[in-house]
Parts: sequence; structure tokens; C-alpha cells
Amino acid sequence: MRTFRDFEVGDRERLGPAPVNLAEAVAFARRFDPQPFFLSEEGVKNHPFFARMAVSGWFTCALMMRLLVDEMHANPVASVGTPGIDHIRWLHPVYPGDLLRLETEITGKRLLGSRPGVGLVHRHMRTHNQDGRLVMRCESWEFLTLETPAPERQHSA
Amino acid sequence: MRTFRDFEVGDRERLGPAPVNLAEAVAFARRFDPQPFFLSEEGVKNHPFFARMAVSGWFTCALMMRLLVDEMHANPVASVGTPGIDHIRWLHPVYPGDLLRLETEITGKRLLGSRPGVGLVHRHMRTHNQDGRLVMRCESWEFLTLETPAPERQHSA
Repeated sequence: MRTFRDFEVGDRERLGPAPVNLAEAVAFARRFDPQPFFLSEEGVKNHPFFARMAVSGWFTCALMMRLLVDEMHANPVASVGTPGIDHIRWLHPVYPGDLLRLETEITGKRLLGSRPGVGLVHRHMRTHNQDGRLVMRCESWEFLTLETPAPERQHSA
Repeated sequence: MRTFRDFEVGDRERLGPAPVNLAEAVAFARRFDPQPFFLSEEGVKNHPFFARMAVSGWFTCALMMRLLVDEMHANPVASVGTPGIDHIRWLHPVYPGDLLRLETEITGKRLLGSRPGVGLVHRHMRTHNQDGRLVMRCESWEFLTLETPAPERQHSA
């Protein structure tokens, strides 16, 4: 299992692809973000930015998160959560049928003064669609332990 | 319908409550954020921050978004999307059974140079649990049109 010690500034990962499923995107929007331009083609008429029905930016975030967790399961990491996300930018619409890929780069790391044994890793994340267009970027903070946790914490989902 | 012209710096709204449903939180985590501490009480053993099984921070964001859209439907607003979110901070765990309330405050507004007829509104958002504890904060940007859109854009979900 990779711990805080195993991550270095400059480390990169390429994750995905994550398909953007129409039915799932609409179900997500209905429950969490029911704005008309995320629900039907009718709802996007006269919209200044969307060429056709788009998906909620929060759905794009959720798909990005799933790619990150899939990678954690494939290559276990002593991650214990995320205190925050900075500068989410939805730069280009994501449409049903898109195929998203995520690039991550470690841009900083430091020990946590308030909690011995835990460090913070800072990461830039960029999500591109199937045409190579940057659709979203953000920066994340992640808590990692310095040692591999006790065996009962090592199971995954 | 409220347009860009109707929002002023200092305007506040109090939204909610949004109940945090256990089954829904686990279903969300299974699909989008299947880290062990969001899936079962077993998965939270030895966790440095969570007293018991918590919910994904992205689920908290999704619940916040629903409160915002419910308010848009109750008091229609000429909103055409969000270019970004800054400084999301998950400050205190959100647990199944919590009841969340959202406070928003307009902290800036400006016309969009690149797109006549559209303005940007900046808003601080703070989410508290049933004990008044601040669990999450963030800052949002929102695109609003200066005029009420054409009738075919005025339907809601």
C-alpha cells in the first residue's frame, strides 16, 4: 500500500475512460441538479453556452471521483479523506455520450502539524473529453497516512 | 423572474433543511466514491477523523446543489449555469441522519465582457448540520442573464 512517503511532486497519472451515460446523467440531474438544460433537449433552447443538453458539473465531479477511487483500489493508497477542493472550473460542456479521461499531477506535499502521522498531498486534476478538449479542472487536497494502516483498515469496497 | 439586475452584494438566503438519507448516501458512495469509510461502519475502524460512517463530500455538494435549485424553482431566476466553484472545504464530517441547512450570501457581481447580456454573481455558501456545526463551505460563480429569457426558456423541471 502506498503511503504519504511514496508520493512525489511531479508524479502523474492518467485515468479513465469514464463514459457519460445519458440515463444516469438525467437521473443524477433529476435528483440533485434539476435545471432544465440538464433534463431534456427542450430545456436547452436559447441557452447561451450549451449546444445541446449537457450534464450537471457535479455529475462530472462524481465521475472524476470514481476514476480516482478505482485507481486507489487497483493500487491501494493510505488515503483517509479530502479536506477540500479548489478552483473547480467547468470549462466546456460535458454531453451525454462523452468519454472522459483524467490526468492528475502531484503539485505539493507537506506533513500535517495538527495530526502526527498524517500528511497532505496537493494535486492538479484535468478532465478531457474524447476530442481532447479540457472540460474541467480543479485542485485537490488529500490526507494520507505515513504508515500503512492496521490490517482491518486495508479492505476495500 | 429575477435577473442579474435583481441581485445585490450582501443579499442572503437561508435554504433547507436537506435530510441526509443513509440508503441514498451509501448508494451514491457505491457508485461514485466507494471508499470504505463511506460504505459501512466496519470501513471506518481506526479512521483518524470520522467517529462513524460518514457520507462522501460530493454527496454533501449534491444535496447543497438541490437546495439551490429548489430555491430557483420557488423563486425563478435567469440562471444559465456555473463556471466554477472555489475553496470547497469539508470542515466536519457529515453523517447519515444529519439535517443540513445552507446559508448563501452574494459577495460580488460583474458584467461578463465576453458575452453581452450575461453577468457573473459570486456567492459564499455555508452548510451547517442540525447542531449548528459548519460542515462545509465554498464559493460559487453563477451566470445570470440581464433580461428575462424568451418564454420557451421559462419552464422548469
